[in-house]
Amino acid sequence: MDYYGSQITKLIEELSSLPGIGAKSAQRLAFHVINMPEESVEKLANSLVEARRNVHYCKECFTLTDGDVCPICASSARNHRTIMVVETTRDLAAYEKTGKYEGVYHVLHGAISPMLGIGPGDIKLKELIKRLQGDVDEVIVATNNSLEGETTAMYISKLIKPTGIKVSRIASGVPVGGDLEYIDEVTLLRALEGRVEL
Amino acid sequence: MDYYGSQITKLIEELSSLPGIGAKSAQRLAFHVINMPEESVEKLANSLVEARRNVHYCKECFTLTDGDVCPICASSARNHRTIMVVETTRDLAAYEKTGKYEGVYHVLHGAISPMLGIGPGDIKLKELIKRLQGDVDEVIVATNNSLEGETTAMYISKLIKPTGIKVSRIASGVPVGGDLEYIDEVTLLRALEGRVEL
Repeated sequence: MDYYGSQITKLIEELSSLPGIGAKSAQRLAFHVINMPEESVEKLANSLVEARRNVHYCKECFTLTDGDVCPICASSARNHRTIMVVETTRDLAAYEKTGKYEGVYHVLHGAISPMLGIGPGDIKLKELIKRLQGDVDEVIVATNNSLEGETTAMYISKLIKPTGIKVSRIASGVPVGGDLEYIDEVTLLRALEGRVEL
Repeated sequence: MDYYGSQITKLIEELSSLPGIGAKSAQRLAFHVINMPEESVEKLANSLVEARRNVHYCKECFTLTDGDVCPICASSARNHRTIMVVETTRDLAAYEKTGKYEGVYHVLHGAISPMLGIGPGDIKLKELIKRLQGDVDEVIVATNNSLEGETTAMYISKLIKPTGIKVSRIASGVPVGGDLEYIDEVTLLRALEGRVEL
């Protein structure tokens, strides 16, 4: 299989072990890298190593960041009395892209899943409870609309309700632009149950 | 947009400038890298830089390699009297995967394209002609089945025929497993013209 010489083959192998990169893409990437200016390749290599070395959890919300506290937790423009609970940093990024949410976040790094043996102690739940000792008005649970996400939402709601802090769940229903014809029955029923008066 | 902290954002930006990697994949890759063992990230970074630094053209066939001559040109098991002409190293890799071709290659690094202003002098054609001064029995032209590839094939054929060396072109026709119903008319006509007796 080594018709390129060992260094290209090695690079292709390492690239194809990354998620979402198959053999063909790894090959295309490797050839692209070989034709890139040497300086850009060094910059990319450096970014990889630096990010791996310096990125860790924000000590407030547990998202990934290279500072002590993430830019969102550090911002005085955000409402620190509203906490949106998400499963992953990618979910946080998705809500940030809307540009409309002004509160802060709490990243659980997973969801409760008895199937996979992930219990409440395996995700950042006690860290969430600790944060509620400060001034918090509302906790918005934005875990995924899956079995695990729903289980986690129920668990959080039961945990927080006794404290008197408001707990809400993001709405479930037909996505914007979604064609009813192609939407599964469970979603259709959820949309019906969650109907709002016009 | 910087809700991650600058180092992750920088890494995502650099990754998304690579071919075939969009914003979503870049994000997924960046998070994967952050969770990889530090040692593996360093290995990957190193492979990128090393490949870029040490990979160059094989002085015989002009494929990319990190040696003086590529493993194929250096192999005594290959038939050095048959040269397959391809447009890119990726095309060479495609034929190598068949495991059945025993000759050597010549990589043109492009094809003649009057539209894009690429003439015979812009691809490794004179280097091919030079190789024909050695002992060569046959040149198999395996440029793409496109306007540029065909133009290049015609050009090569005219160039080589006077030397008395055999020049052939890979067959054009219906791909194996191809359903006639879904194949374009030009390919169907090619397949008809190129029919062989049974």
